[in-house]
Amino acid sequence: MVSAPTHRKRTVYFVSESTGITAEALGHSLLSQFDTMEFEQVYMPYINTEQRAQALTQRMQEAFLRDGARPLVFATMLNDRIAAIIRGGNCYYMELFEHYVDPLSAELGVPPSRRSGRSHAITQPSSYTKRIDAINFAMANDDGVKPGNFQHADVILLGISRSGKTPTCLYLAIHYGLRPANYPITEEDFERGDLPSEIWTNKQKVFGLTIDPNRLRAIREERRPGSPYASLRRCQTEVENALDMFRRLDVPVMNTTNHSIEEIASLILRAVKCPEGQGF
Amino acid sequence: MVSAPTHRKRTVYFVSESTGITAEALGHSLLSQFDTMEFEQVYMPYINTEQRAQALTQRMQEAFLRDGARPLVFATMLNDRIAAIIRGGNCYYMELFEHYVDPLSAELGVPPSRRSGRSHAITQPSSYTKRIDAINFAMANDDGVKPGNFQHADVILLGISRSGKTPTCLYLAIHYGLRPANYPITEEDFERGDLPSEIWTNKQKVFGLTIDPNRLRAIREERRPGSPYASLRRCQTEVENALDMFRRLDVPVMNTTNHSIEEIASLILRAVKCPEGQGF
Repeated sequence: MVSAPTHRKRTVYFVSESTGITAEALGHSLLSQFDTMEFEQVYMPYINTEQRAQALTQRMQEAFLRDGARPLVFATMLNDRIAAIIRGGNCYYMELFEHYVDPLSAELGVPPSRRSGRSHAITQPSSYTKRIDAINFAMANDDGVKPGNFQHADVILLGISRSGKTPTCLYLAIHYGLRPANYPITEEDFERGDLPSEIWTNKQKVFGLTIDPNRLRAIREERRPGSPYASLRRCQTEVENALDMFRRLDVPVMNTTNHSIEEIASLILRAVKCPEGQGF
Repeated sequence: MVSAPTHRKRTVYFVSESTGITAEALGHSLLSQFDTMEFEQVYMPYINTEQRAQALTQRMQEAFLRDGARPLVFATMLNDRIAAIIRGGNCYYMELFEHYVDPLSAELGVPPSRRSGRSHAITQPSSYTKRIDAINFAMANDDGVKPGNFQHADVILLGISRSGKTPTCLYLAIHYGLRPANYPITEEDFERGDLPSEIWTNKQKVFGLTIDPNRLRAIREERRPGSPYASLRRCQTEVENALDMFRRLDVPVMNTTNHSIEEIASLILRAVKCPEGQGF
């Protein structure tokens, strides 16, 4: 079935009539199963006219000539006429809805609406507003500026400078609508040997973030080259002291060295939704 | 084919051995085609042991008894043993990889790696670092604090207070790795009748955000109830004046009233990647 690969590089288009976020997510997941290949990934949202579909087929032909192999297309199209133009181009076309919509319709006993762009539009104003509120909360409660607000947070991330608190908080807010706050553990906390009382009183929502000292050193070095702040020794001491504080607080600890913000965020979400594990 | 629906509410599980982001994205898109139904959506990442799969089947059975209809499962599973446990439960199971991995393998001429959790892990450190840098850039360049940095931005969002600049900037950074800045148009700019020179010199990357005055009024009212800032008259005047400035600058304008941050962000991405349209 699988012949010898002759072309290690392929161009890939993620195509949709609306945002293309779904085509990109599934397409990207599928491509990650073929990690010996090189993919030039092109994001093509709003292909919602026949003219745009025609222009895309021209680009596909150029990619074919450049790569020596036809491009891949991951598409979520609901308009059959526009989809037919793309399918007719020189490409390997994968429609990501086709295997699921009809069986799902039979299972549910209702017909599909066949309207595009429903998934990432504001279809549920209340949950959309919740996400925007969460983003505002995250911005207002970054870097421990208002420990008094910790009681209103869904999650509080604790960690030393550059351990990944802010990006993780923003992802939790944007993607899951959780209200995140974070608190940077500083020299002052280490000298005092303790954390603010607001951390202790809200410790059921606290997660500690840790990071490999060598990685931390590299990150800090980029920001303040040659500074004591970026020295390996200082990084090692801070990481150890922070881990010690996490143990005393008795909070879950996550390592951002080899885990992406998506992975950390989904682990935190699971912990928030299933606090006692519930078998998970 | 489609029988009369008897149960308007169904529980839905998004299941994965890793983050579950892909299962959620495609599952959510498919569900949006059935907008007359009510779905209780449960996010189940890291179902990576047989024990967790067993626990999930118990929850599915509880959902079946509660809803009077079997739950739906959208899954991206690579471990056949764990997947078999879930499939064996009382559910309508949809595996989102199965239709694509083998045909894709045949097309590419290479076997799939069958390793889970590759899609949202840090598989490409350089592009991951780029995203983190973009998030830091967005945080440091929110609210027009450093117009001198506009030259280093990929995108500059311009708009009055509460028109949606910050959430859109954060999404552009987190999801696409673009370096965004934003500038709030204030009373001062209106009185002066002009914008900072850094906006004019970087206008090829500027996008104007506008919003319906009634919606703006509601958002501002929540923040400062009864204030002149939240009055409809003030909102109308600001929106009109801002639109006038966008016209003079001759920049693209996007309306955040009925478009989600995902939609605005993907429109901006398309504009950045295809500045002259290129047929799009």
